[in-house]
Amino acid sequence: MTVRRPAESDRQVIHEALTRCGAFTDEEIRVAIEMFDAGLAGDYSLLVVETDGAVRAYACFGKASLTQRSWYLYWIFVDPSVQRTGLGQVLERSVEDSVRQMGGERLVLETSGRPDYERSRRFYERAGFTVHGRIPDFYNAGDDCIIYCKRLEAT
Amino acid sequence: MTVRRPAESDRQVIHEALTRCGAFTDEEIRVAIEMFDAGLAGDYSLLVVETDGAVRAYACFGKASLTQRSWYLYWIFVDPSVQRTGLGQVLERSVEDSVRQMGGERLVLETSGRPDYERSRRFYERAGFTVHGRIPDFYNAGDDCIIYCKRLEAT
Repeated sequence: MTVRRPAESDRQVIHEALTRCGAFTDEEIRVAIEMFDAGLAGDYSLLVVETDGAVRAYACFGKASLTQRSWYLYWIFVDPSVQRTGLGQVLERSVEDSVRQMGGERLVLETSGRPDYERSRRFYERAGFTVHGRIPDFYNAGDDCIIYCKRLEAT
Repeated sequence: MTVRRPAESDRQVIHEALTRCGAFTDEEIRVAIEMFDAGLAGDYSLLVVETDGAVRAYACFGKASLTQRSWYLYWIFVDPSVQRTGLGQVLERSVEDSVRQMGGERLVLETSGRPDYERSRRFYERAGFTVHGRIPDFYNAGDDCIIYCKRLEAT
């Protein structure tokens, strides 16, 4: 398993994996790829995880503007074929290490409160994130935004 | 009092007012002007308030991506010389009207929990915003992020 920064050549694999996965709307995939491209251009930080020569997961994160040491974890995607293998945890910890190295002290993320996002929320809670807010119907009627934060301890 | 969309020629007046006001750091002013420019380019919505032929206040807002009907109110600035005159309320209501016209159903905003932001928080609370989250030390040590939301009723 290798965690590394992505190259332009990883874009197509990620686009296909997001589409094949079936969990995302066209708009979500469009925004994810826009942010991936902005990451390649240097506007965000990106990490990908490769196993057996194939990219299986990636994360997109970036410093929150007007803050001293807060970072947003915008997106963490793990190919369904390798979910429940611990690969997501490795990626999440790599994001933390990377943010810490850049002087970050906290990660903030927003995710859906929908029942089909329960596994994602559990994933973040097991990783040490706690809920700091909830905006009712934010994404859509009945689809709240849950705001999570994790304080990164110095290692 | 006139509420209107800004023109390129309002940029300098706003930059000077933000600087003269004394409440903002250089980085905050830089980000505010970047967003004003992005607004002129169509990436955000902007409204300015003019009294006696001079621009005294402006707001920057925009649709929250991946949501159906949620908008962010990124910034609302009222020149200190005209604060407490009701001009801020007029502007905030104009933002609401504008968002409603574009199909928006809720406004979300983030502001500081610092004591010197108490007047801002009171302003939003009087306008009907309620607290939906708090991220400790988000902006800096001792400087929490308070997340407000207001559901816009159809008129």
